[in-house]
Amino acid sequence: MSGVWGNKIKFSIFGESHGFAIGITIDGLKPGVKLDLEDINREMKRRAPGQNKISTARNEKDEFEILSGYFNERTTGTPLCAIIRNSDKRSKDYEKMKNIMRPSHADYTGHIKYSGFNDYRGGGHFSGRITAPIVFAGAVAKQILKSEGIVIGSHIKSIHYIEEDNFDYINVKEELLNKLSHKVFPSIDDDIGIKMQKEILKAKEEKDSLGGVVECAVLNLPTGIGSPFFNSVESVLSHLIFSIPAVKGVEFGAGFQISKMKGSQANDELYIESESGGIKTYSNNNGGILGGITNSMPLIFRVAFKPTPSISKVQRTINIEKKENTTIEIEGRHDPCIVQRAVPVVEAVTAMGILDLISI
Amino acid sequence: MSGVWGNKIKFSIFGESHGFAIGITIDGLKPGVKLDLEDINREMKRRAPGQNKISTARNEKDEFEILSGYFNERTTGTPLCAIIRNSDKRSKDYEKMKNIMRPSHADYTGHIKYSGFNDYRGGGHFSGRITAPIVFAGAVAKQILKSEGIVIGSHIKSIHYIEEDNFDYINVKEELLNKLSHKVFPSIDDDIGIKMQKEILKAKEEKDSLGGVVECAVLNLPTGIGSPFFNSVESVLSHLIFSIPAVKGVEFGAGFQISKMKGSQANDELYIESESGGIKTYSNNNGGILGGITNSMPLIFRVAFKPTPSISKVQRTINIEKKENTTIEIEGRHDPCIVQRAVPVVEAVTAMGILDLISI
Amino acid sequence: MSGVWGNKIKFSIFGESHGFAIGITIDGLKPGVKLDLEDINREMKRRAPGQNKISTARNEKDEFEILSGYFNERTTGTPLCAIIRNSDKRSKDYEKMKNIMRPSHADYTGHIKYSGFNDYRGGGHFSGRITAPIVFAGAVAKQILKSEGIVIGSHIKSIHYIEEDNFDYINVKEELLNKLSHKVFPSIDDDIGIKMQKEILKAKEEKDSLGGVVECAVLNLPTGIGSPFFNSVESVLSHLIFSIPAVKGVEFGAGFQISKMKGSQANDELYIESESGGIKTYSNNNGGILGGITNSMPLIFRVAFKPTPSISKVQRTINIEKKENTTIEIEGRHDPCIVQRAVPVVEAVTAMGILDLISI
Amino acid sequence: MSGVWGNKIKFSIFGESHGFAIGITIDGLKPGVKLDLEDINREMKRRAPGQNKISTARNEKDEFEILSGYFNERTTGTPLCAIIRNSDKRSKDYEKMKNIMRPSHADYTGHIKYSGFNDYRGGGHFSGRITAPIVFAGAVAKQILKSEGIVIGSHIKSIHYIEEDNFDYINVKEELLNKLSHKVFPSIDDDIGIKMQKEILKAKEEKDSLGGVVECAVLNLPTGIGSPFFNSVESVLSHLIFSIPAVKGVEFGAGFQISKMKGSQANDELYIESESGGIKTYSNNNGGILGGITNSMPLIFRVAFKPTPSISKVQRTINIEKKENTTIEIEGRHDPCIVQRAVPVVEAVTAMGILDLISI
Repeated sequence: MSGVWGNKIKFSIFGESHGFAIGITIDGLKPGVKLDLEDINREMKRRAPGQNKISTARNEKDEFEILSGYFNERTTGTPLCAIIRNSDKRSKDYEKMKNIMRPSHADYTGHIKYSGFNDYRGGGHFSGRITAPIVFAGAVAKQILKSEGIVIGSHIKSIHYIEEDNFDYINVKEELLNKLSHKVFPSIDDDIGIKMQKEILKAKEEKDSLGGVVECAVLNLPTGIGSPFFNSVESVLSHLIFSIPAVKGVEFGAGFQISKMKGSQANDELYIESESGGIKTYSNNNGGILGGITNSMPLIFRVAFKPTPSISKVQRTINIEKKENTTIEIEGRHDPCIVQRAVPVVEAVTAMGILDLISI
Repeated sequence: MSGVWGNKIKFSIFGESHGFAIGITIDGLKPGVKLDLEDINREMKRRAPGQNKISTARNEKDEFEILSGYFNERTTGTPLCAIIRNSDKRSKDYEKMKNIMRPSHADYTGHIKYSGFNDYRGGGHFSGRITAPIVFAGAVAKQILKSEGIVIGSHIKSIHYIEEDNFDYINVKEELLNKLSHKVFPSIDDDIGIKMQKEILKAKEEKDSLGGVVECAVLNLPTGIGSPFFNSVESVLSHLIFSIPAVKGVEFGAGFQISKMKGSQANDELYIESESGGIKTYSNNNGGILGGITNSMPLIFRVAFKPTPSISKVQRTINIEKKENTTIEIEGRHDPCIVQRAVPVVEAVTAMGILDLISI
Repeated sequence: MSGVWGNKIKFSIFGESHGFAIGITIDGLKPGVKLDLEDINREMKRRAPGQNKISTARNEKDEFEILSGYFNERTTGTPLCAIIRNSDKRSKDYEKMKNIMRPSHADYTGHIKYSGFNDYRGGGHFSGRITAPIVFAGAVAKQILKSEGIVIGSHIKSIHYIEEDNFDYINVKEELLNKLSHKVFPSIDDDIGIKMQKEILKAKEEKDSLGGVVECAVLNLPTGIGSPFFNSVESVLSHLIFSIPAVKGVEFGAGFQISKMKGSQANDELYIESESGGIKTYSNNNGGILGGITNSMPLIFRVAFKPTPSISKVQRTINIEKKENTTIEIEGRHDPCIVQRAVPVVEAVTAMGILDLISI
Repeated sequence: MSGVWGNKIKFSIFGESHGFAIGITIDGLKPGVKLDLEDINREMKRRAPGQNKISTARNEKDEFEILSGYFNERTTGTPLCAIIRNSDKRSKDYEKMKNIMRPSHADYTGHIKYSGFNDYRGGGHFSGRITAPIVFAGAVAKQILKSEGIVIGSHIKSIHYIEEDNFDYINVKEELLNKLSHKVFPSIDDDIGIKMQKEILKAKEEKDSLGGVVECAVLNLPTGIGSPFFNSVESVLSHLIFSIPAVKGVEFGAGFQISKMKGSQANDELYIESESGGIKTYSNNNGGILGGITNSMPLIFRVAFKPTPSISKVQRTINIEKKENTTIEIEGRHDPCIVQRAVPVVEAVTAMGILDLISI
């Protein structure tokens, strides 16, 4: 169950950080879609390590190989499987530490769930590396959505206490989203972005790590997508977003802040746009969704990421084999902040979710 | 899709606010479970209207009738269906307003999705009333969970700006949760609870409404429940919680606040409890879940509810038939704050989700 | 799992033969479909007992009550639930026999599966009576299919050794199918039909029972419905058909007989129909399906029903409580042959399956 | 939908006959299962081409590569993906024929369904070659079932008109099934097997092909597996079996023949086995299933395969591009009878279905 998601379109992921390959199978794509492989590559690079100083030095090019479902440069409509070989593995780093449970990682819970048989090297199946095939699938989904005018984009809203509050929920522009997707560190305000990155590097020097918040928008969605109750747009997207390692909160529109508003402040009053005759709302506190269904406004949500659990500081933990208390200092190559590389992953699962919702 | 949820156990809801009956079918329950109907009734009453001044005057007793799957006071293992007849309907109240879209309700999105064929009376299938069968199912699920020692409870963490910050994520006690479940207005601190209720009544007088935050804990879960990626505990629970009308945010453990912590602050260091030999963490910023899987700590999450969209103040909106701008003053019986009645609904979907997760 | 089926459209059944009510919820119907309730009633009557001498004397009118999802004579698009009250129950007949396992019934397997907690009265959830809500759902599905030109019909191909072999797999006419649907005993050749009924009455006099084969056709299906492998038309339909109690075989087109043909005999050669330019085959040994997908030919299949297991002859069996061998003579009201009443059930699940397949 | 199957355990297939690789991902396997790769290889060889004169000369070794979910010789519990590279491809053979629809193949239906974008080379995703990963998955499933005592085996019951009727539905022995699984041509009676093979070679010489029937047994299943209605054992197995290319009929126990029996002949009377105290039936006309649930008897079913549609005789067909009638003589490497190689495929999907059913 854990590796398959979707109603009309099924996404099946597989792989471990230090296994032979990781990958994804997408079943239910419509036939005849011309895929822009360069564009998929560009998306893969947004997530790939090694782009700047604030990401891990693990050198994985994340080159994908499409095994099936793709013929004469187009989707066939049959299951499309793509794999990514793991190349820069240093499995021995992990061998000696296999019984020392890293705090706030899935080492302990994975050990219990899989009775100790899981591949512990580099976090195994729990590794953020498994998000590479998800970004592949998201890139495919994005291309199909784009052909219907739907655009997904996001910015880093905050890192630690540094925040930018400049996202217009009513008039967010497609150009802004496209521009952000080409930035290595996607902040709207470059000055704030530089401050954020400095803060991350400072934490790195302190052998520590930081978290942050990603804010995402989806534009040009048809009105009427989603359903009340168990297939609400919020249900589907939060389900997928909480699948991403390190996510601890998801909120739509005004989110938690809406609980502090009065009805007369929170309600999104409707009006008919004079030029187009289209129906709009004056505010967008509901983030483009009412009753689980898209209205005509931009879909807006925020995702909270915790600081990378891998830090070089001494931490208290346990040895699961010896059943005794011990300490750990996590060496090796890890990101001082995962948020930058998580942005394309948030967009990818959003694209997967939206594609499934509009395909039903 | 919208009305059916579950993997091992399938829950199918149906009904409209002013139709003949609303209900739910639960498929996959184990046979031989003795149901305490009095206890189910008590849960139904927690959600039912009319308990105090801050809930709607609509008089529905929410009496359920079990049609199947129940024999000799026990579950049979075959689908259990329960229905609740709608009695106190004042459908004509809605007839005249059917083309005036209430702001922040699902009137407009439902109209588009269902091409105008949905039952608009009282919100139809979008009505909070459909949460009554969900509370029924949750009550059944809770009883099964309780037989395995698992306890679910919650308090109202905030109403508008009034907040109580007294929930111990590490040592929350079963007694506290049970005590809360018997309160009409479940705050931990009674003085704060009274302040919250006064604030709600004040808003009511102002023809306005308020929102708030519900905080929930699940105790004594087995370690190792849930899965990485698409069946993470967070994914499953957020999916269900975002199905509840009016929810706009869900966060686990430290939630959005964790994005402002450093790794060395956020990480939940592990230790072996000297007496029991059990494995615990010193803090619980991950809310009892790592890698999508329960560790041994209490499961903690918060849910943000928006203020009731139905307010008596004048609001700008549209007439969908005439396609023109207009205004609305919503008369009739509505809650000035839905949070109090939403508490058992949050617990119900949590029980449904946990039951499905432990049954797999 | 056992009571819910469907991909795009979910059908959830519930109920026991002697419980309060049986029913079905259909989720995913498109909104605005005008339902002809008289026509649904007519379908229900085809299955209902008491139509002629060869069906049980249990007097159930099978009157349905629609609880939800239906407004102003049309579907709303939200879950449609219909129930049928059980009225003519004689539960005491079964009380005394509850430990005597009726041969070839599900008494023993149900007892084991449900640990003895299942409702044993009249077969409980295993009763053929649960096919009444299935016929309801099938009647709804048929109406939607009919609006797209798709017609389903069937005849009784054989009862015991009496058989009619007069179904034209290539040119079966809509008129014939409609005519058959109005016959109480749907044989194409009335003389053979009378012989079949005599054979059934003879078996009844002998305190015995008979089985038979139903042959079904679906006309005017769009080409290209279904999928290779796990969602083949044969997979979907056989899955549903084998859900009907008493079915022991399903075959498409030439079925088992095709295994005795040579390729040069079996292959359905193609040609372009001169008038229409449509693509047809000279023969239809594949029953309208190739690679799991509809071609342009009539969909043809046959379903084998076993003789009613309830017979009045003395049979050897066991007492499950005493764990000893014993004998049984099944008294009470039972059909000497279920085939006549099974015809609308076969058509109903076919309609459900086809509706789901074309909705994806 | 078409490539993913399973409730508790999800199987996702992918691949085309002449693409880079074909494969399968199995999600939900329990961790710690030691896999016997030699045994999996042996199963793969049973299906692989080139074993004797009656199978195609295409030279594929069907060597699998496990990419994930397998660590230290055991399953990890995370998704297990295996791929098989396509090596002996002669794609040009197909290029020139791509518009000539081969009769009784999926060429035409696939062309319509996928709007002409499917990979037509060698049947693409419709190819019997895609059953190789299914046999891999079945081999894994069989090993897990075997560890619980469950054994699956089968024989070729008939080829054309040559038949062996020597399968004991009540006392079929594990030794017989094991012996059959080691035969290249699994008939119980060697003399009949030789006659069958001669018949196949004769058809081959005549540029024709033959079909046949496979009969399968599953022993030592726990009593109480499966469910009434939509998850009956017959529903689950027939769903999977009809996914296999060329299957046109499935019957359980006495199958179609049961429709010609009287109740007093068909009913499986029960008794308590004196030695063991276990509950048995005197006959096994229901093939080990009642009410969709296993009783204690062997599970028995038969599967009808059509003759290989690829024959070298001249056949009438159409050119889909030119939209005109034409003829075809299918050259190249094809099996004169697929039944021999289909036996392990039938067993494989049976193992997949049973594993899922007992895992729920």
